[in-house]
Amino acid sequence: MPLIVAVDRPLDPGQVSRICEYADGVKVGLPPAVPRGAEWARSIPRSCNGLRILDFKLADIGPVMLSIVEPFKDYYDGFIAHSFIGSNGALIELKEVLDEWGAKLILVASMSHEGSREVYDRARMHVYEVIERVHPWGLVAPATRPGIVAELRARFPWARILSPGIGAQGARPGDALCSGADYEIVGRAITGSPNPVDAARRIRGEMENARSECS
Amino acid sequence: MPLIVAVDRPLDPGQVSRICEYADGVKVGLPPAVPRGAEWARSIPRSCNGLRILDFKLADIGPVMLSIVEPFKDYYDGFIAHSFIGSNGALIELKEVLDEWGAKLILVASMSHEGSREVYDRARMHVYEVIERVHPWGLVAPATRPGIVAELRARFPWARILSPGIGAQGARPGDALCSGADYEIVGRAITGSPNPVDAARRIRGEMENARSECS
Repeated sequence: MPLIVAVDRPLDPGQVSRICEYADGVKVGLPPAVPRGAEWARSIPRSCNGLRILDFKLADIGPVMLSIVEPFKDYYDGFIAHSFIGSNGALIELKEVLDEWGAKLILVASMSHEGSREVYDRARMHVYEVIERVHPWGLVAPATRPGIVAELRARFPWARILSPGIGAQGARPGDALCSGADYEIVGRAITGSPNPVDAARRIRGEMENARSECS
Repeated sequence: MPLIVAVDRPLDPGQVSRICEYADGVKVGLPPAVPRGAEWARSIPRSCNGLRILDFKLADIGPVMLSIVEPFKDYYDGFIAHSFIGSNGALIELKEVLDEWGAKLILVASMSHEGSREVYDRARMHVYEVIERVHPWGLVAPATRPGIVAELRARFPWARILSPGIGAQGARPGDALCSGADYEIVGRAITGSPNPVDAARRIRGEMENARSECS
């Protein structure tokens, strides 16, 4: 199953557990984690099978990123950081410690909003050098820009590609999968629905239909 | 006074209050805020006069950044975000809402670790375009690289420059001030000292001596 649910608001673990019946993983971000606290952020991954990702969009020097993720080490499989910050003194240090933990590093390679074209995408040859040097388990690339997903797929065949931007930001379920992504990340279109469980089931069905048509 | 204390570990408000007698502001980051929670992060700025900065190194799309900072709107004067995420759909949206709140936006323009040279600094002409477009109150630039501080000072005379990297990362107190920074941010050299209050007093003295020698 290619669907990862982004828990972008303070759902309770029971709700997440029911949504996760139709997903292959869960991603927890800062907006609900900061006010609800570490205990809440640790309770969510327990409610889901599959891939458990902490998405704090880490973008700091190595020691600071490590002290941010350390409290979550036994609760998550993967941690998202920005490739833009570079390897030396930052991502290399993070990667080494995550490797020791048996955890996965996932690097943002490009973003889903228009502003990603202003710096991130213009500097992407430098970003790709960082990705080659750090060799993360996965990459985040926007479903809203299938050309970028396809470029990453060709250039980094060893990496899993995770694509946000489905629903509220304009991409349709399956768009990124058909461009080479391994997972699509869906937040508001599920968590903001009056019936999140139905929304997850429906979106997952749409992803599978789209993928069977394009493959 | 040019000294901002980075509360990079879970000090109690009483300790912060005593350190702040020798500082002109306080900056609170993610490492202590996530495990201690929002209540703790709201208690710290009350313990300090001067500039109160929430440093979550925001680097996401606009709506996500806004939902991260909203719980802190009445507690902090300024919020730090990364310039590399671009303006459209990200920093412009954040700036508009912070303006409505009467809060300050502070953008990271370059970082203090070696990896900052790999992408951030190479893409800095694009980063500077974002800074011009967004027109933040302040910029973060590393005390460890005085050339970058001086370049920002010349290019953005209207911006306050805040420089981390003093102490543990190698810059001396006053280095950045002498290159054009308005504030120096000190964390570990104060908070990791056996006597943080004495360390703050001593470092502030060193800053003032250095500044009087170079000006």
